[in-house]
Amino acid sequence: MRMYDIIRKKRDRVALTTEEIRFFAHGYARGDIPDYQAAALLMAVFLNGMNDEETLALTTEMLASGETMDWSDLPGRKVDKHSTGGVGDKTSLILAPIVAAAGVYVPMISGRGLGHTGGTLDKLESIPGFGVRLDARQFRRVLETTRLAYAGQTGSLVPADRKLYALRDVTATVESLPLIASSILSKKLAEGIDALVLDVKAGSGAFMKSRNEAIALARSLVKIGGRTGKKVVALITNMDQPLGTHVGNTLEVIESVGVLTGQVEGDLRELSFELAAHMLVLGEVAEDLPAARRQVIELVDKGDAFRKLQEVVAAQGGDPRVLEDITRLPTARRTEAVAAECRGYVQRIDAEAVGVAAMLLGAGRTTVDQAIDHGAGVVLHRKVGDVVEQGAQLATLYYNDDSKRGEARALLAGAFTIGAEQPARQELISKVIA
Amino acid sequence: MRMYDIIRKKRDRVALTTEEIRFFAHGYARGDIPDYQAAALLMAVFLNGMNDEETLALTTEMLASGETMDWSDLPGRKVDKHSTGGVGDKTSLILAPIVAAAGVYVPMISGRGLGHTGGTLDKLESIPGFGVRLDARQFRRVLETTRLAYAGQTGSLVPADRKLYALRDVTATVESLPLIASSILSKKLAEGIDALVLDVKAGSGAFMKSRNEAIALARSLVKIGGRTGKKVVALITNMDQPLGTHVGNTLEVIESVGVLTGQVEGDLRELSFELAAHMLVLGEVAEDLPAARRQVIELVDKGDAFRKLQEVVAAQGGDPRVLEDITRLPTARRTEAVAAECRGYVQRIDAEAVGVAAMLLGAGRTTVDQAIDHGAGVVLHRKVGDVVEQGAQLATLYYNDDSKRGEARALLAGAFTIGAEQPARQELISKVIA
Repeated sequence: MRMYDIIRKKRDRVALTTEEIRFFAHGYARGDIPDYQAAALLMAVFLNGMNDEETLALTTEMLASGETMDWSDLPGRKVDKHSTGGVGDKTSLILAPIVAAAGVYVPMISGRGLGHTGGTLDKLESIPGFGVRLDARQFRRVLETTRLAYAGQTGSLVPADRKLYALRDVTATVESLPLIASSILSKKLAEGIDALVLDVKAGSGAFMKSRNEAIALARSLVKIGGRTGKKVVALITNMDQPLGTHVGNTLEVIESVGVLTGQVEGDLRELSFELAAHMLVLGEVAEDLPAARRQVIELVDKGDAFRKLQEVVAAQGGDPRVLEDITRLPTARRTEAVAAECRGYVQRIDAEAVGVAAMLLGAGRTTVDQAIDHGAGVVLHRKVGDVVEQGAQLATLYYNDDSKRGEARALLAGAFTIGAEQPARQELISKVIA
Repeated sequence: MRMYDIIRKKRDRVALTTEEIRFFAHGYARGDIPDYQAAALLMAVFLNGMNDEETLALTTEMLASGETMDWSDLPGRKVDKHSTGGVGDKTSLILAPIVAAAGVYVPMISGRGLGHTGGTLDKLESIPGFGVRLDARQFRRVLETTRLAYAGQTGSLVPADRKLYALRDVTATVESLPLIASSILSKKLAEGIDALVLDVKAGSGAFMKSRNEAIALARSLVKIGGRTGKKVVALITNMDQPLGTHVGNTLEVIESVGVLTGQVEGDLRELSFELAAHMLVLGEVAEDLPAARRQVIELVDKGDAFRKLQEVVAAQGGDPRVLEDITRLPTARRTEAVAAECRGYVQRIDAEAVGVAAMLLGAGRTTVDQAIDHGAGVVLHRKVGDVVEQGAQLATLYYNDDSKRGEARALLAGAFTIGAEQPARQELISKVIA
């Protein structure tokens, strides 16, 4: 078998066999296939697509290129959630403790922020002492004792995906449905889970700008996931404005604790609870979705979910007491308000602009090796549909480093569109695909 | 400017600007752009195409990535020929001496054989002493004194094309019209010529299997060539059977000498003479094509063309006397005949199979660094349309190395299709595009 022939087949719109995809995925992971041949194949896949069989094969062969976690000795279901990423999306910090408190194992492998979107690992690391670099033994110990462990991807999990993702990133081949689907699924399946809830975001701040693209990706993920023997449920959710009000690492932990202690309402609570409810059903600790929803509210109201977050913080080296007195979590020293220039309804809040503003203040990074300022970010005081008076505060910048404040401020001010008409209500969860 | 954005544009079917193509061609030639990004762009070009403006820009920017020969001080036109390659195609050995004898300069940069097709340099090197590695000074001296010089490409001519061609070869992006056109034209324009005759072959033994593909390539070459200020004429010629009867390096020199001394007739003579006639018109030494055709015949009949070949052989270090007594050119020691298994008309001779058979006997190479056996090859005793009796000789294998003779023999025998019906006459030159 030759890589040349595999490239030529895909170039000529002929479907690849499982053997050919295996040859490619393993050969590339091992370093036997050069980057330039992989890049040519990626572009051919981007432009000519892959059918379900090929996407399934790419998923399972990337998975097989590395190690897979095995929790079959732990009693009970293992369920995780994956989001395609958005601005202000901190649901992992809220739903994972709820689901673990309900008795379901959540072995959660997350990523770091890049560009305008944040990463769960960065958010968790804003809790003093919290460690996300767990080796296999540490991960198992935390998962066994608390039913929840948060960690970053290690080198031994899906090496083919890690190498391919880096190559896609520099060859303009990221936004390909089969490549996205196989990348997401292979990484999540390597966690050794039984089921997966997907939050597929659509909108200006999401990877998928249109709802139809998001639905197509969700359908593919559910179908391919099912073919691997896992139950996968996908929610299509709105990312036309940031989720919740806080954007930036420490700020997002603060808002998450607010939801878990019953002090924060709104879209973040609604989405986190609904995703958690689906996880409880898949985790087989709730009969059906209505029962699961009631259980979620109970676990939060009784404080079980919050205590679970404290437990995992302690288990991973962090100080659980800071969560009790949230003022002990250091935010940036300086703040600056952005005020409305006219009276009216908030028509839209450009999520990507808010994300970039937070990044410029230090909350995010433009290259993978850049350091971030955990305390920096943005807090929104108004969301879409709210009425504002002229001069009222729309948002607050949190920053230590002043160098890009002007740029961030202009972006944030421009992110708000104020108008006379009351905008149509945006549906937060527009579709469930199972 | 970023290579990423250039790839994305082409991926999304947006035409690239001349500045973007310059950035790519020069950056890649210099080594600033990695192979994997170039490979992704090549596949995007392969699948999404390039318009004439882009192809022209790629041609001129690849040309500008290196040095260009300059013969403006030599009196008279400089004209060359390029063939897209076929089996048994040795017209360069015949037409170049004819055209030079007519007073036109022919600065001919050629390649080596690879796969089933041969290369002019390999053929010339089968003449004892003939050197094709000329530096710029040597090339000029030979061209000045004989009006004809044969050499291989040096590192300083179109480095962008040399690197890109090697990359296309391993990423299944060779057969792309704009990439082929810009590669051919940039190399030929670097020779400092005024005009170019193209032999675009179509058929089973050619790069372009269909006549329509060949016509499309020819049209593009003529159009883009014209936009660079050069006169380009393209002939669409048949490559459904080998050209002439001899395939293999020494064997092809022998057949070429046969044409130049008036002893060999048939398709090879016909095509070589017609290409030469077009070159005489472009070289402005003939009024029109009929006059040019008469001049070609005269130059051959009077022996001027043959003496010109002897001159250039001597000028490039070879022994011109071997051309007078062709038995002094060593062919392979062993021969074996292939006989017809039934009576009938030769319906077709698979040119690619004949080329591969010759290669297996040692006449060609599968990788660029492989040594070849100049004396090995194949001689055809019958061509399409000829009648054969059962047991009559169809072809003869010439070989020294016995190891792949069986395989070569089977291929060669299978290359002939014999049938009861007289086949329709194949047109050798089916179209002229100017």
